[in-house]
Amino acid sequence: MPSIPFGSNWGDSSIALANEELSGKDRDLAELRNERFLGLFNQATLPFYWARFEPQRGQPQTQRILNTARWYQDHNCIVKGHPLCWHTMTADWLLTMSPRGILRAQVERIQREVADFAGVIDMWDVVNEAVIMPIFDRYDNGITRLCKDLGRIELIRSMFETARLVNPRATLLLNDFDVSPAYDILIEGCLEAGVHIDVIGIQTHMHQGYWGTQRTLNVLKQFERFNLPIHFTENSIVSGQLMPPEIVDLNDYQVDDWPSTPEGEQRQAREVVQHYKTLLSRPAVQAITWWDLSDEGWLHAPAGLLHKDHTCKPAYNALLQLVKGDWWLARTRLTTDASGQFSFSGFLGDYEVSLGNQKTIFSLKEKGAVRVSIDF
Amino acid sequence: MPSIPFGSNWGDSSIALANEELSGKDRDLAELRNERFLGLFNQATLPFYWARFEPQRGQPQTQRILNTARWYQDHNCIVKGHPLCWHTMTADWLLTMSPRGILRAQVERIQREVADFAGVIDMWDVVNEAVIMPIFDRYDNGITRLCKDLGRIELIRSMFETARLVNPRATLLLNDFDVSPAYDILIEGCLEAGVHIDVIGIQTHMHQGYWGTQRTLNVLKQFERFNLPIHFTENSIVSGQLMPPEIVDLNDYQVDDWPSTPEGEQRQAREVVQHYKTLLSRPAVQAITWWDLSDEGWLHAPAGLLHKDHTCKPAYNALLQLVKGDWWLARTRLTTDASGQFSFSGFLGDYEVSLGNQKTIFSLKEKGAVRVSIDF
Repeated sequence: MPSIPFGSNWGDSSIALANEELSGKDRDLAELRNERFLGLFNQATLPFYWARFEPQRGQPQTQRILNTARWYQDHNCIVKGHPLCWHTMTADWLLTMSPRGILRAQVERIQREVADFAGVIDMWDVVNEAVIMPIFDRYDNGITRLCKDLGRIELIRSMFETARLVNPRATLLLNDFDVSPAYDILIEGCLEAGVHIDVIGIQTHMHQGYWGTQRTLNVLKQFERFNLPIHFTENSIVSGQLMPPEIVDLNDYQVDDWPSTPEGEQRQAREVVQHYKTLLSRPAVQAITWWDLSDEGWLHAPAGLLHKDHTCKPAYNALLQLVKGDWWLARTRLTTDASGQFSFSGFLGDYEVSLGNQKTIFSLKEKGAVRVSIDF
Repeated sequence: MPSIPFGSNWGDSSIALANEELSGKDRDLAELRNERFLGLFNQATLPFYWARFEPQRGQPQTQRILNTARWYQDHNCIVKGHPLCWHTMTADWLLTMSPRGILRAQVERIQREVADFAGVIDMWDVVNEAVIMPIFDRYDNGITRLCKDLGRIELIRSMFETARLVNPRATLLLNDFDVSPAYDILIEGCLEAGVHIDVIGIQTHMHQGYWGTQRTLNVLKQFERFNLPIHFTENSIVSGQLMPPEIVDLNDYQVDDWPSTPEGEQRQAREVVQHYKTLLSRPAVQAITWWDLSDEGWLHAPAGLLHKDHTCKPAYNALLQLVKGDWWLARTRLTTDASGQFSFSGFLGDYEVSLGNQKTIFSLKEKGAVRVSIDF
């Protein structure tokens, strides 16, 4: 397993399956999804959208998500929570509160979730899309009000400090789809103001077309200067028609049917491989999450690596070949020398070595030449 | 005179005239320009572009600009210096230096100019266009290198602290053409990091068309939240064809001839009046500077309030009527009551009152009802 998390976001069916809510064909389908997931990935992003997580104040869906998170943990996956503070899909019931009341509710919400999931979820998208947060004008919501009141940096400071106090071991991300200088400047402002951010999260959502290597590297260059790890938190490339370029807010593109096409699937496979290769070429990139694993997810976009029925698209197979074929060290027979040593090269990560019918696992955690001793 | 500075940028002929470099028709033309300037304005922005101010290291054009600044000061104008730190038109000779050497040269340059002009120029555009500064990629230059090295906020901090130490009475501006959230976030970042900025400077340069009231108010709303004074430092509306909308960097539009048209001049006059009315409706706006006073300035644009020969366009006359006709208290005969008092309403600013052939000047400096006592 590579030490870099490769993951995707949740599927509703996987949550339902982890909670034993499915039977018959639905159960079979959900099990197939999980099988495909585990065949390729080792990281899952689970949903904490406040409107869905706590539709009625005081009745959070903690147990249902915790059951799901534990399933992933039991299958050796890193689990991330997304997001703790976001203006979209936030709780309607904030709208009756004063700014101070909204702040208290948001802080208490973070304290509760981070505490309830600690040890299972130790990685959080703490604040999502802060660049647009105070100027978001599609509809009134409590978090936009709060961000207007506090300012972006003070809001980010409060949320990060709250999460860190509750779980000091957690990895805390600032996440955004805005990759313009505005996000760059926001991160600089947070760091100059002493806000402790662990990871810079970047969404790509390339529904309007793959960025290409050059743009991807340019975006990376902009954010690498902070010397912080970068996670590509939400990556999408469609295997069908591209969303028209004039759409600014992707959510404005509402279609009932957005088919995957054979040519689109070939293109998607090439672009997915190119995208992952480009990202992995930069040491700053320390996690990559696909969004969504299967079609019929967000915006009904054919952005899945799997079709709706979880059969594999070429992109799934190509990515599997890239990660487990090209990047992983294949099963290799090695012979020790007179002093009982052998050497090999490989990515950082976990390795299994066997001698006869004895087996052990060791990890490479640091760049450069390392010496590992194994006693059988 | 209104207490709000209404001004424009320098004209090369006015600088030449203040230095007694002109004769004949050129001198007459420059004198006409000055006359038109003083007829409408009380604030002048003078050029400190490093490439022109100190083309040879160690030979700054201090005396020439100081003579000009004193002329404006002698004519009761506020004089502003523009800019102390900018990547465009910066000194070529910085390119041979290390980042540390560039920083030292830039700091020393600020110390020298702010000291040499103190008492004459006490208002500075300290850092110009910091949003684009580190990612400006048209050509290599020392200030972009410096900003990449320090980061925007640390660069701004250094330049502001340097200027303030030398002239603690100076009004120090951060100035930008970028009115997107990137600039908003940069200001927030500076303030959160403890950088002391006196005034937010906003350029408009509406060569592609007047913003209109709503956009102007939206821009203002974005920056008013900082509770800092706002100066509209560089305002342009053309009286000819608009620059095509697809141009991103206005400097890319290079034409030899960009004529002012009769219809364009009527439109410009209406839009200039609307623009100044919109700005003056917001208490945060505390200075407005036109760019350029006469045609054939920047980009050869017909953005002047005057033609190239300094004859008046309708916009000049309309703005004169607005400021000195509508906003100034016209010459008014008032009669005192039994206790020797009279009352009137007017903008903040200076007022002249005469009784017989005695005259005095008083100022209204604070909003709301005030009582002024005059002894003749």
